[in-house]
Amino acid sequence: MNFSLLRTINSPADLRRLPRTDLAKLADELRAYVLESVSKTGGHLGSNLGAVELTVALHYVFNTPHDRLVWDVGHQTYPHKVLTGRREAMAGLRQLGGISGFPRRDESEYDTFGTGHSSTSISAAHGMAMAAKLKGEHRKAVAIIGDGSMTAGMAFEALNNAGVSHGGLMGDVLVILNDNDMSISPPVGALNKYLARLMSGKFYGAAREGAKSVLKNTPLYEFARRFEEHTKGMVVPGTIFEEFGFNYVGPIDGHDLDALIPTLENLRSRSGPQFLHVVTKKGQGYKLAEADPVKYHAASGKFDPAVGFVKPATPPKPTFTQIFGDWLCDMAEADARLVGITPAMREGSGMVDFHKRFPTRYHDVGIAEQHAVTFGAGLACEGLKPVVAIYSTFLQRAYDQMIHDVAIQNLPVLFALDRAGLVGADGATHAGNYDIAYTRCIPNMALLTPADENECRQALYTGFQHDGPATVRYPRGAGVGVPVQKQMTALPWGKGEMRRESGRLQGQGPRIAILAFGTLLYPCLQAAEQLDATVANMRFVKPLDDALVAELARTHDALVTVEDGCVMGGAGSAVLESLQAAGLSLPVLQLGLPDVFVEHGDPAKLMSQCGLDAAGIEQSIFKRFGGRPTLLRAAANQ
Amino acid sequence: MNFSLLRTINSPADLRRLPRTDLAKLADELRAYVLESVSKTGGHLGSNLGAVELTVALHYVFNTPHDRLVWDVGHQTYPHKVLTGRREAMAGLRQLGGISGFPRRDESEYDTFGTGHSSTSISAAHGMAMAAKLKGEHRKAVAIIGDGSMTAGMAFEALNNAGVSHGGLMGDVLVILNDNDMSISPPVGALNKYLARLMSGKFYGAAREGAKSVLKNTPLYEFARRFEEHTKGMVVPGTIFEEFGFNYVGPIDGHDLDALIPTLENLRSRSGPQFLHVVTKKGQGYKLAEADPVKYHAASGKFDPAVGFVKPATPPKPTFTQIFGDWLCDMAEADARLVGITPAMREGSGMVDFHKRFPTRYHDVGIAEQHAVTFGAGLACEGLKPVVAIYSTFLQRAYDQMIHDVAIQNLPVLFALDRAGLVGADGATHAGNYDIAYTRCIPNMALLTPADENECRQALYTGFQHDGPATVRYPRGAGVGVPVQKQMTALPWGKGEMRRESGRLQGQGPRIAILAFGTLLYPCLQAAEQLDATVANMRFVKPLDDALVAELARTHDALVTVEDGCVMGGAGSAVLESLQAAGLSLPVLQLGLPDVFVEHGDPAKLMSQCGLDAAGIEQSIFKRFGGRPTLLRAAANQ
Repeated sequence: MNFSLLRTINSPADLRRLPRTDLAKLADELRAYVLESVSKTGGHLGSNLGAVELTVALHYVFNTPHDRLVWDVGHQTYPHKVLTGRREAMAGLRQLGGISGFPRRDESEYDTFGTGHSSTSISAAHGMAMAAKLKGEHRKAVAIIGDGSMTAGMAFEALNNAGVSHGGLMGDVLVILNDNDMSISPPVGALNKYLARLMSGKFYGAAREGAKSVLKNTPLYEFARRFEEHTKGMVVPGTIFEEFGFNYVGPIDGHDLDALIPTLENLRSRSGPQFLHVVTKKGQGYKLAEADPVKYHAASGKFDPAVGFVKPATPPKPTFTQIFGDWLCDMAEADARLVGITPAMREGSGMVDFHKRFPTRYHDVGIAEQHAVTFGAGLACEGLKPVVAIYSTFLQRAYDQMIHDVAIQNLPVLFALDRAGLVGADGATHAGNYDIAYTRCIPNMALLTPADENECRQALYTGFQHDGPATVRYPRGAGVGVPVQKQMTALPWGKGEMRRESGRLQGQGPRIAILAFGTLLYPCLQAAEQLDATVANMRFVKPLDDALVAELARTHDALVTVEDGCVMGGAGSAVLESLQAAGLSLPVLQLGLPDVFVEHGDPAKLMSQCGLDAAGIEQSIFKRFGGRPTLLRAAANQ
Repeated sequence: MNFSLLRTINSPADLRRLPRTDLAKLADELRAYVLESVSKTGGHLGSNLGAVELTVALHYVFNTPHDRLVWDVGHQTYPHKVLTGRREAMAGLRQLGGISGFPRRDESEYDTFGTGHSSTSISAAHGMAMAAKLKGEHRKAVAIIGDGSMTAGMAFEALNNAGVSHGGLMGDVLVILNDNDMSISPPVGALNKYLARLMSGKFYGAAREGAKSVLKNTPLYEFARRFEEHTKGMVVPGTIFEEFGFNYVGPIDGHDLDALIPTLENLRSRSGPQFLHVVTKKGQGYKLAEADPVKYHAASGKFDPAVGFVKPATPPKPTFTQIFGDWLCDMAEADARLVGITPAMREGSGMVDFHKRFPTRYHDVGIAEQHAVTFGAGLACEGLKPVVAIYSTFLQRAYDQMIHDVAIQNLPVLFALDRAGLVGADGATHAGNYDIAYTRCIPNMALLTPADENECRQALYTGFQHDGPATVRYPRGAGVGVPVQKQMTALPWGKGEMRRESGRLQGQGPRIAILAFGTLLYPCLQAAEQLDATVANMRFVKPLDDALVAELARTHDALVTVEDGCVMGGAGSAVLESLQAAGLSLPVLQLGLPDVFVEHGDPAKLMSQCGLDAAGIEQSIFKRFGGRPTLLRAAANQ
């Protein structure tokens, strides 16, 4: 495809100059462009292909950027990026220095609100709509939200608030429910069933809208509208969205521009809270993705669109996610009390096999982290042993529940935190940088940071056996590739282990001990060879091995703490606290993630930029403490 | 009243042995007992008076503790406590060593789930119900939740999950909506309006239930039930609770035992998710509380029931809440961009005057902390300056939004964190111990800890002027009583101030510097008089005054950090990090809240127990570092 029409669109203003009759061709080109683009860079696929016509219609009907579009989650915004001046920039999508896979306010004036996590769009759009009222500006704020995102409580909090007036003011907010019957995992929950029932009454809705369009701008229309509003509240209960104060329209076909454009024009002319139910198909227009939307949710790298995603010939090393999934099945086999819980991340958290093998003990609660945790607490009260699998970044959503419902009651809930530390292409919104700091301050909560695949399995076992709350964190992707023992053995509670001992020569430069938390143990071991440093694999952030910390402090000239989490309040700070509590003062270098939001890009490159590869760790230590002979040699060779 | 019947009830089993005809008398005695009890101890009032008949009916109908009652929030559980063996223990309610104002698992087997924060009950009850299914046990789990708590998204997440089957299993959960048309502040939001509409159709509901009761156990009933279920999904839309998969019953009068008991018996016999809508009156049976339920939500101390709450003759010192409320009005007067946001805490956060004076700029979003923060972010995107007033403990509910929607986008949202540190009578669930640790690890986020009333006003002004996110934390209650300057002046950004300087005599014991964060500055100053210590009022946890920290380290033998937050990851840890980053090693004593959940009780006593009064601070320092002459004298005098 030569994209002859698409190439003329450098902004939505260009789009709005096109005759209506050209829009279908433009949508076809846009879809093909997105597919081709993602096949070269990787990235989200199905959701973008499903949002093509909706994106074209929105920019055609609304006066963007004056009117505000807020895309929920944001991984359906590639068509939006292409139409808003970032067509060529798609080649650098999600790469270091390139454009983000999500909307970002600092990337374009058309990206009115940065997203990444789900279900924030209605709150943000309501804020923008109320701001317009307060400032006396006339603009619309539009939230585009998927049916998966609607299950998070935050979306309901926003509906509940946006559907009523505030001091006499009511925002002009339009919520578009992009209903493709799934989020990342298959759909769950009562709301999804409800939406399906609404769709089964589709013809009625479409007919009603058709009538509205025909009647519009006639006195009859106004009468019909008033009659409808009158009857709605009084006699016939409406949809739940109407009960929340919204004018509900739909469902309409989200791939039919002839339905979308007049309906959006109609809604644009109305004031107050509007709700449009649009039905789309994830992966629309790409047969492979339509047939398997879960698989084609996102491409991890390049692929040939004609062939689709192919498994690599040599299977890669197992990821920590797979280690968790295997452990979960084995543990469930061994202990009937285990119940697995995921907030809509069956695939991402490695729970597909567990779901198949233990269907009654598998609970996908939808995008609902808060409920996931407190539901787990309820199970634990009855003597079951819940394992809550959540990405580090998403556990931020259930922080209060972790404290209030689990830790205060000292309930044995195991938190399996995947995607701890930097996650790479998804960038700052998804970074699991803060969990060490925000978890270790919670009384009763244990926190384990396994260093490799086998230790991850054993740490999960250890946390599961613990009679109280425990968190095990592990990063995205694979570890160093150590063999995994089938046998599960509890790690000594609250104890680290020595992995390398520095020579005891005197007068050869400072004797340094590296205290590694998590998978950075391995680059630390490499760095230690150059520095002749001691290395301890700390394993536990909490309870911290105070005895080991004190021993290392007494036998070394300086300590170095290393972690793939934020330095502020992190594991290194726990070491500092421990030293001071023991009355020990010595120089400590804290290495970890800096106090900035780290951009998207290749994870290895990012870690290198943060100085957290072997070379970076070595250099930081040398710079701070000078070195021993091996180290000085290495420095001279640079 | 001599409580002749109530005194015979030492457990729900005693209650269940009573004839039905005695229950009304028992309810009367129970109400009088609760009123008398609270008038002596203080505590929550209106919600407890409103829950008397419901509590009697629940324990009468359900086989507690085998069946599980989960009370949402929990400040309606005094009648439950009285009926479950804690009648006499009510004399020690909310006092150190006495029973809690909330349900607690370690207090009674009838307290199946500890609460305090709102909206957790459905999740927990669903967990218990699913556990029963998995274990093959026959029991009911009942969540009793107020209409205010229903506005939090978490409740919807739970409804969405509990209304469907899981691997073929469906929990026997009963949700009782205790609809008293308010939470703590007056009701807001679309859901509340919806519930009011349901109540306006009350007669229909009651009639329907009446019919059900009469028909029950007849074939006709089963036919009617099936017909109703069939028609509900297909022709006539039901209530939103039915759309979520629940069998909805109600509304019924929650003070009418003749309505409550047969309805609960009916629901007990049904399996799957049930929903009962009960209408009660906050303060029922106590005229003063019925007339002003906001005022009579809780009693801060003793009162005469015949007179009601009276204002103290000499007005006490202004609380930090009042300081905030006054500042908010003054700031709103000075800057038209200010918008105030509260999640259902108008009174508690001191925003009554602001609401009156600036109705369009006041936003009570309901119990919806997540939405409150992201709504603020949306406003900030449009150039407004939102001030989000949230208790420290409740901000835990919006932690992700604080990071993801505010901090990543570097939006100028001011968080006014009331109730930081220990809160006293409300205990561990409400403690604001963690905010320093969980806030300071967030990039872009500033964190101010004012030491007194005037500094609080100026800190709020400073945070408001800052072009980025800022948090100002302040404790419950009053400060030392320093005069408040009407003039608003920005504090030097990221700078602390010297408040006392230690003498520079050599050979007189160690020279110690105390770095105080927040209101503990004043006991630190007292302790410093005894110790001849230097005292710095640090003001900012972030950005920390690294220059001042370094200067104090260079000119003293030891440092002491003092804060009313958790030691782990707290402000003291920030000081340790700063010292190490500057290459400075010296002994540092970290004083703050211990790594345990501190029980309820008088705040001053609790702080003393934690060693955070002047005497405790002095003793801790002396114990660690020994002392200078004044200090040794003090020690000798003990």
